Amino acid sequence: MAKYTVGIDFGTLSARALVADVQNGREMGWAVSEYAHGVMDEFLPDGTPLPTGWALQHPSDYLCALKEAVRKAVQNANVDKNDIIALGVDFTASTMLPLEEDMRPLSETHPSNPHAYVKLWKHHGAQAQADRMTKTAREMGYELLDFYGGKVSAEWTMPKIVQMIEEDEALYEKTDLFIEAGDWIVYRLTGNVKKSAMIAGYKAFYDAEKGYPDRAYLKNIHPKLENIFQTRLRGDVYPSTHNAGGLSKEMADVLSLNEGIPVSVCAIDAHVSLPAANICHKGEMLMIMGTSVCHIVLGDQMKKVNGMCGAVKDAVIPNLACFEAGQSCVGDMFDWFVKNHFPMEYENEAAKLSMNRHQYLTHLAEKKRPGETGLIALDWFNGNRSVLVNSDLTGIILGMTLSTKPEDVYRALIESAAFGTRMIVDTFEDAGIEIEKISACGGIAVKNEFLMQVYADVLKREIRIARTKQAGALGSCIYASVAAGEEKGGYDDIVKASAHMGGTGERIYRPNLKNSAVYEKLFAEYRRLHEFFGRGGNDVMKRLRMIQRDMCV
Amino acid sequence: MAKYTVGIDFGTLSARALVADVQNGREMGWAVSEYAHGVMDEFLPDGTPLPTGWALQHPSDYLCALKEAVRKAVQNANVDKNDIIALGVDFTASTMLPLEEDMRPLSETHPSNPHAYVKLWKHHGAQAQADRMTKTAREMGYELLDFYGGKVSAEWTMPKIVQMIEEDEALYEKTDLFIEAGDWIVYRLTGNVKKSAMIAGYKAFYDAEKGYPDRAYLKNIHPKLENIFQTRLRGDVYPSTHNAGGLSKEMADVLSLNEGIPVSVCAIDAHVSLPAANICHKGEMLMIMGTSVCHIVLGDQMKKVNGMCGAVKDAVIPNLACFEAGQSCVGDMFDWFVKNHFPMEYENEAAKLSMNRHQYLTHLAEKKRPGETGLIALDWFNGNRSVLVNSDLTGIILGMTLSTKPEDVYRALIESAAFGTRMIVDTFEDAGIEIEKISACGGIAVKNEFLMQVYADVLKREIRIARTKQAGALGSCIYASVAAGEEKGGYDDIVKASAHMGGTGERIYRPNLKNSAVYEKLFAEYRRLHEFFGRGGNDVMKRLRMIQRDMCV
Repeated sequence: MAKYTVGIDFGTLSARALVADVQNGREMGWAVSEYAHGVMDEFLPDGTPLPTGWALQHPSDYLCALKEAVRKAVQNANVDKNDIIALGVDFTASTMLPLEEDMRPLSETHPSNPHAYVKLWKHHGAQAQADRMTKTAREMGYELLDFYGGKVSAEWTMPKIVQMIEEDEALYEKTDLFIEAGDWIVYRLTGNVKKSAMIAGYKAFYDAEKGYPDRAYLKNIHPKLENIFQTRLRGDVYPSTHNAGGLSKEMADVLSLNEGIPVSVCAIDAHVSLPAANICHKGEMLMIMGTSVCHIVLGDQMKKVNGMCGAVKDAVIPNLACFEAGQSCVGDMFDWFVKNHFPMEYENEAAKLSMNRHQYLTHLAEKKRPGETGLIALDWFNGNRSVLVNSDLTGIILGMTLSTKPEDVYRALIESAAFGTRMIVDTFEDAGIEIEKISACGGIAVKNEFLMQVYADVLKREIRIARTKQAGALGSCIYASVAAGEEKGGYDDIVKASAHMGGTGERIYRPNLKNSAVYEKLFAEYRRLHEFFGRGGNDVMKRLRMIQRDMCV
Repeated sequence: MAKYTVGIDFGTLSARALVADVQNGREMGWAVSEYAHGVMDEFLPDGTPLPTGWALQHPSDYLCALKEAVRKAVQNANVDKNDIIALGVDFTASTMLPLEEDMRPLSETHPSNPHAYVKLWKHHGAQAQADRMTKTAREMGYELLDFYGGKVSAEWTMPKIVQMIEEDEALYEKTDLFIEAGDWIVYRLTGNVKKSAMIAGYKAFYDAEKGYPDRAYLKNIHPKLENIFQTRLRGDVYPSTHNAGGLSKEMADVLSLNEGIPVSVCAIDAHVSLPAANICHKGEMLMIMGTSVCHIVLGDQMKKVNGMCGAVKDAVIPNLACFEAGQSCVGDMFDWFVKNHFPMEYENEAAKLSMNRHQYLTHLAEKKRPGETGLIALDWFNGNRSVLVNSDLTGIILGMTLSTKPEDVYRALIESAAFGTRMIVDTFEDAGIEIEKISACGGIAVKNEFLMQVYADVLKREIRIARTKQAGALGSCIYASVAAGEEKGGYDDIVKASAHMGGTGERIYRPNLKNSAVYEKLFAEYRRLHEFFGRGGNDVMKRLRMIQRDMCV
């Protein structure tokens, strides 16, 4: 008798639910539900304007999307709800909301206060606080950041909290608990606060052996922070294979599922893709490719790697160190281009060929040879996460002439993204972490053959594409199957579950060596510019941002 | 009794004739006539294909345009032809044609031979020859280029002749005389070959004191070049205020003007604008602003200035040294942007406001404050003429984020053009040539108020706009009035003529000091990038071009 699990993947704009067969990972049915308020980066729902760099979300959107996506997915799957044995959740992180004493989001009672809303992972309002945390760690000689790329990211948990303390202390005092949105969803499903060790590890400096950061350090950041992990960030953490508790009666009714089925502890939307692509072994790398790209590498021991976002042991796959690196914008960068710079002259031609803007530019760009555009770009349109960990960095396009065409720029942007990944792969290997196998999943990996070929050519490696098109949701199905356990028709460990339910398909991109030779020259140029603008040769980007901030006040 | 002169301005695509009142420069009537063959850069009229980079013209086009434009302009002016006292001509340069012994264009008898046609100023087929001339001068330690920016331009006279010797020696042997198209028009009007000292000075290394280049140098370039200035480039040169001779009976009939009225010696289309804007004194600069920008500065003595295109004494205004600098693309760069990167989303809004693409982007861009875009561009989309004299340089846009809008980039391009001019002004002043007054003429100066304000803010100077919208043609009217002389109702010197007939209008752009303060910071960034990419800090642009050429073979 077939058994199924439901995985719910909470992304930046929508939630996706998937019903998968526990035996083989077959995808029985799925559904997507968009968040009504999307990303709030200009105004609150009542019109309150937001400062530049802010990115908020509305917590009620998650519950609506959860309900709609799960119900539809189960309906589409057309399976007996009695055969659904568990539920798993993954979420963007650190995407955090402040709660009142009754576990209610503060935004319900403070709808006009920006700080009362969910601060989305890509909220960049706390850059100053992040910088101060880095500086303080350095000044104290505190090795906190050794495994976090040497810099605190504004996207992590602590800077977002410090920002609130400093900008709205009254609201901070009213906050009973800061909780990751993913942990809050698990709470809503089960009634239990069972915090994700994966999120705490990557986003809040949690270490299985050492626990949370030193109090002296926290106090130096802000006096109110000293006891934060005992107060407003309290709660034990658990692996994502752990059963957080049974589905509550109330939510079982809402979702039309059986009460009491296990719900796994939340996982991070990127990392959860590893078992989905059956990346569970030392020396393997997964690229999760979408608006941004996350690079996850498995190694057998913890090592310091320059500019990585984080390295945590045991959090994703037991006994393996899992290193995370990333590029802050990839798909977003191409979207930026087609949204802002696609000329009307091309619209007709694209329409004739029944192509969207991306397809049409790709169609034109792929006719060119490497180097033929004469362009080099730096893919820093949303800062540089790895390997520079600097959100003040900005994009460059270099080499334009009056003959430069839109498809030339589009191609240069694609190449720049591949060069960015090459920097990351080289940095891992320079640190002694060998990468023997590369796989990819996510929208771009599945859809964009030209881009994947450029990546293979630039990396000079084969790239395998995950079988699933919804690696996040399938990953949550896999974690859920372990939360259920073998007894209930699931699995007792994640590696075994992944071997059954995850994997790559037949599509493999192999490097074209002739192209690789040209890209080697272009990458040398990319690296030279990368080092110059990224490591203090000319801090023009930072200064321009400072001038910009001054002018926008 | 009012007197009038007719000025004919031969541009790249058309000739413009203007009838102006000698007393006050009032523009009585004008007409434009386009060249039937335009610029031939792909095929000859009989279908013979042309190599890349060639740009030819058909000499008969000039005569047709001359006739049509002058007749219509006089008609439109509605003045008595007996009150028209002289005719003046300005022309693009070096735009040169080979003649047979009877002064007939070789293209008449060799219609399928590309070398028999007029080589337009922007013909770039002789780049290799130009480079060799530069190299030879350096090797010989010959100071020829001291006042020509240190490099021979492919657009000048000599490389074009060397190209013909090397590529079609038989046709070279059949050539009796190489003549500037402008000098040939004056010959056609008067029957006299009276070569322009202005053209010879700027385009063929003529120096009033030293004459033409050294024969040893010429011989080193090519043995056949040794006596070129005594043979195929023979002929005395004259100032443009000189009367080349009376209008011939034949041409008087064709143009419906009186026989025998003075025709002034040809001038260069850019430089002729100086008297039109009443820029006739030491320390004054005129910017002729269109697809590219030409900067002309008057000083009281010859000085070496880095990266200038040329400096000639007496050629434009007696007793003054006239320095020429330039930016290779300005209007062209904005056109590139709106042609390639104007999004469809903006088309409707622009249409609603009855604005063209430029107007709409300007409308959006001018709402921002300096520095608010966070962008810096290098305006090298067509290389850099002054002050770097390097056609391998290419454009940069730096500072993009996902929030960057088309109008931000458009504004950054405008600012980059202004910064490019600031580099030129600073370079003049660093060389001891003070610039006390700046005026501007040309399409952009007249039409684009926002751009002119940015220029004023960046330069921290007032900019006066020429009263006339057709500075070239009016300039030729002014030179013609001096060729006529006071006795015939004209003037005896150009400064006096200019004071009466030329000048700036009421429009003066004054720097906004608050903006200037921000631009000072941005210009520091521009200059830092300019020096780094322009003077060997990173020759990535040149290397990318080499890779590009390799790939395009």
